[in-house]
Amino acid sequence: MASITVYEVGPRDGLQNEAAIVPVEGRIAFVEALAAAGAPVVEVGAFVSPKWVPQMADTDAVWRGIRSRPGTRYSALVPNLTGLERAIAAGITDVGIFAAASESFSHRNLNQSIADSLNTYRAVARTALDAGCQVRAYLSTAFGCPFEGDVAVRVVIDTTKALLDMGAYEVAISDTIGIAHPGQVRQVLNCVLGSIPANKIALHFHDTRGTALANALTALDLGVTTFDSSAGGLGGCPYAPGATGNVATEDLLFMLHGLGHETGISLHAVCQASAAIGPWIGRPSPSRYLRAWIATH
Amino acid sequence: MASITVYEVGPRDGLQNEAAIVPVEGRIAFVEALAAAGAPVVEVGAFVSPKWVPQMADTDAVWRGIRSRPGTRYSALVPNLTGLERAIAAGITDVGIFAAASESFSHRNLNQSIADSLNTYRAVARTALDAGCQVRAYLSTAFGCPFEGDVAVRVVIDTTKALLDMGAYEVAISDTIGIAHPGQVRQVLNCVLGSIPANKIALHFHDTRGTALANALTALDLGVTTFDSSAGGLGGCPYAPGATGNVATEDLLFMLHGLGHETGISLHAVCQASAAIGPWIGRPSPSRYLRAWIATH
Repeated sequence: MASITVYEVGPRDGLQNEAAIVPVEGRIAFVEALAAAGAPVVEVGAFVSPKWVPQMADTDAVWRGIRSRPGTRYSALVPNLTGLERAIAAGITDVGIFAAASESFSHRNLNQSIADSLNTYRAVARTALDAGCQVRAYLSTAFGCPFEGDVAVRVVIDTTKALLDMGAYEVAISDTIGIAHPGQVRQVLNCVLGSIPANKIALHFHDTRGTALANALTALDLGVTTFDSSAGGLGGCPYAPGATGNVATEDLLFMLHGLGHETGISLHAVCQASAAIGPWIGRPSPSRYLRAWIATH
Repeated sequence: MASITVYEVGPRDGLQNEAAIVPVEGRIAFVEALAAAGAPVVEVGAFVSPKWVPQMADTDAVWRGIRSRPGTRYSALVPNLTGLERAIAAGITDVGIFAAASESFSHRNLNQSIADSLNTYRAVARTALDAGCQVRAYLSTAFGCPFEGDVAVRVVIDTTKALLDMGAYEVAISDTIGIAHPGQVRQVLNCVLGSIPANKIALHFHDTRGTALANALTALDLGVTTFDSSAGGLGGCPYAPGATGNVATEDLLFMLHGLGHETGISLHAVCQASAAIGPWIGRPSPSRYLRAWIATH
């Protein structure tokens, strides 16, 4: 069976969408516990405006506080050159940029058209690469937009290519609102993989409608080997209140390991990491595996 | 794409495992709403002892209160001849019997060994068939037992065959504790389907660890065309407190319809049925699709 990369986004995409603001020490402990569990990469935060995303304030302090573990990479999201400069100043060498596959979402999230945002990111990527950083890209709303509904696969392919052309080592094709089902995943990936190699993309699912694992299973069948997930299933979707967040790392690992895939991550240790962050979050974990684990531990 | 039978067990397996006891009028309304949504079959209750399962008391009153809809079949669980006599007296013509694939579970749930329970059910099935009833069988703990852990596939196959031999028209191979993952589903079904036709089995998944839809997707790929589910994802697992219940009908329909399969059921109408039963249950629905639906309706 293949080795699968599970890209841990809980401390960023998870915490960023929780109502509770976890203090720096809680975020540091969470990142360190996930790295200790064997995560090959952990996204530690985002260099965005604390005015808009207070959950991600002090990402530089979080990063400085982490005792980094050999074998784990640490990344952070940067929305623009200002964010990149803060990330580089903090010593981050793995940065993430994020475009959208729908114009409405791009305008609401980035206040720019898709084309303008790609121009912005071209400059960000060039500066990041010149500074010796690795660049990863996210493509939001690739399976549907909360404002426009359907998204054209052509835009997904073109925008993914543009992000790869500017130097991103991979693009996380993201189901931001958790609307994808396996039928759509197969359809979209069949198109995308016609012109983009599978090792250049990751899949980033939200479990809003319960289909995230079935979607991942479908993508696995089509040769995708990198999946984003959030420990404890933290997060949510700002456009679907009450909805669940990213696919839970625990649920994903249970499936991947059951299929015989290797991830290098200890499921038990991830459960411990998620259980420890629980009191900061103040609501039951959305991870089904974790809930069953807690009930029996 | 194939036509898939979704066997609705919410009013039985769902409500039976909820802490709240829904009164007869609530149960009638729930069954009628699910039938109106197009469910081809609804399990309305169980003729078990109200001392042990108070949630299922008055199943005869529920059944008498239902205005039955052409196109929907209505079934009820019977644990023994006494239960069967009550079901027949109430006018039920579709009955369900339930054996286990692990000795420990059989003893705890039925107070009989597997072999003894099969003898009991042989008499129940004969009497039911003589009375003109259809008999469906459940095979509990087919993917794992809360007391013994692993369950031998050989026992799953032999017990399934025994249940078919006594006249059951199909056997619902059941993941009672929600421990199965797609790797195991593929492995077990590859063995089972070596000697039992796919149209003689149904799959009955619980979503305790989040894998139910991925498991169903795997079973679909292997030719299974009948799946049990519970509207709203009601229920739970008495052996894993806090865990989620049967796979939610909503989540399953969203996936099946997305794959192009026909079920004859309106997803929207099932959401309405589940939303209406919500206040009786007194906790947020475990169905992820339903939660997203409620948030946007």
